[in-house]
Amino acid sequence: MLFYSDNTAPVHPKVMEAIRAADAVDFAYDADALSQALDARFSEWFEREVAVIWMSTGTAANALALSLYCPPYGGILTHDNAHVVVDECGAVELQTGGARLLGCPASGGTLNPSALRTRIDSLGKGVHHTRPFAVSLTNATEYGRVYTRAQLEDIGTLCRTEGLALHVDGARFANALAHQNCAPAELSWRAGVDVLSLGFTKNGAMNAEAVILFDPARADEARRRRKRAGHLLSKGRYIAAQLHAMLEDDLWLANARKANAAAAALVPAVGDRLLHPVEANELFLSLSADEMAHLRAQGFGFHELESGVARFVTSWHQEVADVAPLASALAAL
Amino acid sequence: MLFYSDNTAPVHPKVMEAIRAADAVDFAYDADALSQALDARFSEWFEREVAVIWMSTGTAANALALSLYCPPYGGILTHDNAHVVVDECGAVELQTGGARLLGCPASGGTLNPSALRTRIDSLGKGVHHTRPFAVSLTNATEYGRVYTRAQLEDIGTLCRTEGLALHVDGARFANALAHQNCAPAELSWRAGVDVLSLGFTKNGAMNAEAVILFDPARADEARRRRKRAGHLLSKGRYIAAQLHAMLEDDLWLANARKANAAAAALVPAVGDRLLHPVEANELFLSLSADEMAHLRAQGFGFHELESGVARFVTSWHQEVADVAPLASALAAL
Amino acid sequence: MLFYSDNTAPVHPKVMEAIRAADAVDFAYDADALSQALDARFSEWFEREVAVIWMSTGTAANALALSLYCPPYGGILTHDNAHVVVDECGAVELQTGGARLLGCPASGGTLNPSALRTRIDSLGKGVHHTRPFAVSLTNATEYGRVYTRAQLEDIGTLCRTEGLALHVDGARFANALAHQNCAPAELSWRAGVDVLSLGFTKNGAMNAEAVILFDPARADEARRRRKRAGHLLSKGRYIAAQLHAMLEDDLWLANARKANAAAAALVPAVGDRLLHPVEANELFLSLSADEMAHLRAQGFGFHELESGVARFVTSWHQEVADVAPLASALAAL
Amino acid sequence: MLFYSDNTAPVHPKVMEAIRAADAVDFAYDADALSQALDARFSEWFEREVAVIWMSTGTAANALALSLYCPPYGGILTHDNAHVVVDECGAVELQTGGARLLGCPASGGTLNPSALRTRIDSLGKGVHHTRPFAVSLTNATEYGRVYTRAQLEDIGTLCRTEGLALHVDGARFANALAHQNCAPAELSWRAGVDVLSLGFTKNGAMNAEAVILFDPARADEARRRRKRAGHLLSKGRYIAAQLHAMLEDDLWLANARKANAAAAALVPAVGDRLLHPVEANELFLSLSADEMAHLRAQGFGFHELESGVARFVTSWHQEVADVAPLASALAAL
Repeated sequence: MLFYSDNTAPVHPKVMEAIRAADAVDFAYDADALSQALDARFSEWFEREVAVIWMSTGTAANALALSLYCPPYGGILTHDNAHVVVDECGAVELQTGGARLLGCPASGGTLNPSALRTRIDSLGKGVHHTRPFAVSLTNATEYGRVYTRAQLEDIGTLCRTEGLALHVDGARFANALAHQNCAPAELSWRAGVDVLSLGFTKNGAMNAEAVILFDPARADEARRRRKRAGHLLSKGRYIAAQLHAMLEDDLWLANARKANAAAAALVPAVGDRLLHPVEANELFLSLSADEMAHLRAQGFGFHELESGVARFVTSWHQEVADVAPLASALAAL
Repeated sequence: MLFYSDNTAPVHPKVMEAIRAADAVDFAYDADALSQALDARFSEWFEREVAVIWMSTGTAANALALSLYCPPYGGILTHDNAHVVVDECGAVELQTGGARLLGCPASGGTLNPSALRTRIDSLGKGVHHTRPFAVSLTNATEYGRVYTRAQLEDIGTLCRTEGLALHVDGARFANALAHQNCAPAELSWRAGVDVLSLGFTKNGAMNAEAVILFDPARADEARRRRKRAGHLLSKGRYIAAQLHAMLEDDLWLANARKANAAAAALVPAVGDRLLHPVEANELFLSLSADEMAHLRAQGFGFHELESGVARFVTSWHQEVADVAPLASALAAL
Repeated sequence: MLFYSDNTAPVHPKVMEAIRAADAVDFAYDADALSQALDARFSEWFEREVAVIWMSTGTAANALALSLYCPPYGGILTHDNAHVVVDECGAVELQTGGARLLGCPASGGTLNPSALRTRIDSLGKGVHHTRPFAVSLTNATEYGRVYTRAQLEDIGTLCRTEGLALHVDGARFANALAHQNCAPAELSWRAGVDVLSLGFTKNGAMNAEAVILFDPARADEARRRRKRAGHLLSKGRYIAAQLHAMLEDDLWLANARKANAAAAALVPAVGDRLLHPVEANELFLSLSADEMAHLRAQGFGFHELESGVARFVTSWHQEVADVAPLASALAAL
Repeated sequence: MLFYSDNTAPVHPKVMEAIRAADAVDFAYDADALSQALDARFSEWFEREVAVIWMSTGTAANALALSLYCPPYGGILTHDNAHVVVDECGAVELQTGGARLLGCPASGGTLNPSALRTRIDSLGKGVHHTRPFAVSLTNATEYGRVYTRAQLEDIGTLCRTEGLALHVDGARFANALAHQNCAPAELSWRAGVDVLSLGFTKNGAMNAEAVILFDPARADEARRRRKRAGHLLSKGRYIAAQLHAMLEDDLWLANARKANAAAAALVPAVGDRLLHPVEANELFLSLSADEMAHLRAQGFGFHELESGVARFVTSWHQEVADVAPLASALAAL
């Protein structure tokens, strides 16, 4: 059983059905009716007017989003181990034309105004120095933590004060919403978020993400940058269909709840091995090399993030019962 | 009936079936068995060792391919109206870090050594001037022409002489092969091609293309550039599955033949309106504004490329019988 | 005697004296008094508030100026043989992050609204296509022509209508002013120019140019981009001193008049060999290979631009009497 | 008296004389005899064949040097507070097309194999992660330390083992050589250095630096990149002349010794305020705000690097006697 990533999960049957339903002669790129309907659909979901730029990967979504808010000579405040820093091979640098990621230490991958303020103050203000133009945070974080609304709002306030844009890498935004049990608006624009990378792939879609622009005036630039990045799919209807399917009957929420529940179900088995509170669908455990080997010998797949630290990710397709074998194996260590 | 582009066609049922068959828990990115098997599969198809970099758009494939062969301070010889020049919003400039596209006039979009030589000779050799590092040609061309093997070989020879890499934009490579009725190797490496953007989307796939590296030593760089460009799909198995399906039982060939046949079936109806010989699946017709309006009123969709010039593209899903209404309408003008 | 370029001329004694006068302990970069005084000095010269960004090369000035007005996904309309196109090795592409130069045919290197309009209309408007954001013209042109105020205003009007910024490559702006015998404002912002690359090197300075921003609000970005481009000199006072010296007692004008007069003095000797009217300090002559060889054998240095076309450039240090030997040699051909 | 930077110093009289001596009609760019002679002159100086690319700033030299060795998707190991990181506004990112600077902690700005190894090991090896291609170190360091030959060789050995290029930012290379009292070859290629940014501006030149390529085969690319960056001066002879003058009769060494001696002369006055050993021409002192204000009131100019830390830089034009007033003032605190 694979716990490497929620990307190992299959596609949800309702998403696959939507893909099949879209399989007909239609206009190319994003001129089809499904793509054209996205702005309205997500504006309703977010309770305000938004523009939706579908994308096929989260890396591309993050880089595109940040390229709209940070010039080549600027910098982006983020945490030291953010996905944009360590897992995207310089995609932000490519799309921004060479802007710099300015890492801040952040326990659990959770930024806070104090750490941001310290980093901002460390930066010179003259022309010799990279000035920050944006903050990028991840919610749920790379360590499975979820920002509270108050935490987000505090960062949003700092951003307004400092003239910084606020980007959220929401590869697991649904898991964060499910944990907070609140509306999408609460963890986004109402807290001061300007642009959101909204992930669906990890939550049951095939390869479908979106950049949500809370300032729709930037949509034309975003669409040109998407094309320039080679991300305007020729047959866009197959990705648009997935986004609609994920919103239909709150499939996104049901899936995220299942993934979160599966992770939560593992917690009682791990005791004080747990390195971060489990608020979404990831567990980080302190395990020895022997223990890891023992688990692998039983067929469990997972990543060793660094020496002695293992990451387990649950997904929408796993019922609590499905992860019981892992719970048992962990408890038996 | 839509003749705007072969991108308006649906996905071939066998491709859709392959996608469904791949729908299971599996390794992420390109660590799944289907992705891992691509190099071997295509090496057999091309009769030599190649590396396969799956991509989701042709624009991304072209830009990635060229970024491997042209430095930021270099130039790429191509024809004035090549897709990379007029339809990709500067994707090549983005991926190469600012290399320049050096257009050459080319009737029917078909480059030839003489036109290339003239353009090369027009470029200064000193450090002030952009030097060419590659030639990019499109086959079948943007005007539905197909290069003969001799034409390709002549360009390949020029490239070797001048130290230029040779890239082929093969968005409609299958249509070209079907027309020439020859093996993939003949229109690629045997003629001197270094790197090929191999299209499947227009020929029945969902959003699936590939960069074929005839120099597999460049694969590591290509894979890093793919990730950096945000094109490493999280669930790569759904794209790898399509590439396998297209090769299975020569589905690619059957599809391309159908598209070409549908285009050929329209030729008798158009008389001297035809602006370029029909060798693949596109027709370019001289039509007045009134004539275009008349056709549109009958439900035919097509692009007006420039004043008085209309483009009709057929696709794999159209039998000759399917395009008969258009043939009649054209004949009746 | 060298007529390759006005860059072959020495530094004017008054400029050298200004450099020596600046040779003292002082603040680094542009914090010295001479650099700090440039905005005020040039604001007076231009009869409006401007910001001055000193630069050491015209190539760097052009690329910086255009990077302020054209995003990476945009294009810049210019003539086919503009210096930015053929003589700067892609500097504009580097500084803009990959914007595209959109060449227009232009006899004598002189753009006009009709040619610009035709080029604009040839460009698609959708996201697939590079959209223009600026026009870049050269005055005096690369062929020694000078725009009239009316010609400039017509282009300025087009730019306003189309929402395009207007940049002037003024490597020989002084020669143009001297020819038109008008104030700097007339050939710049009063005609609709947004940003000017103002050259002094060819007119008697050592390696000193400036970007003149008629919108001083862009100065902060320009200064950051200058630093990022490695063009913020550590000892900026030595370049600032030159700009002041060039304005002092209208040295710029005296120098440009001398260069123009030297060129004009050659005209009677060349008859119908002359390919472009001489309005600044360059002559383009139709000469056979034998004639060129004959001139070279007599010690005259000049560039052969293309087969049968020779360029002769005069400079501020040449009196009419100094070029008499060349006049005689040309007349004797 | 200004101790902000060695950039505040004037130009050495012999350099100014060389500039005047070069002031004549000559070939443009780097076609003049002085520029053409640089390769041979510096090859002798370095005791092996090198190629010399003159540049006008250290920032430009660093960025150009690194662009030759690190692709856009790569990274450059350096220390957290290196000039390329904190004082160049992203110049490396611009010239490399978006490569990443990978900071390592380094006391005194002095890298060591252990810190580099730790950083390398922290980087993932897959396509998701930025891979290092080069190490960039500064000698003398930004904190006035000088690498021993053994220290350099150890880093050079690590670079060879790991397949990394080794770049030295030698803005104060002369000060390092003067301190070590060794030949230029010892602190460069013999220790494994591939490319050196060789500074002269801080040591008595006007705005003159050089990139020294120990692999001359890269010279053509370097020269094209210099032009593209707008750094090919039109009148290059005025910069080439300076480089020759600095080597003549070892002016570089005399100047560096004077600057180092002036710094050393301050040491006895500062007691345990000294934060780093003084090996070149910089002192870093622990001073309270009141103490700094007191010094400034006496006319001493210096930078406060961070709260409580002041930097004093001496220069070639200061005799030991010249800095005595500062020594007295510091001793009196």
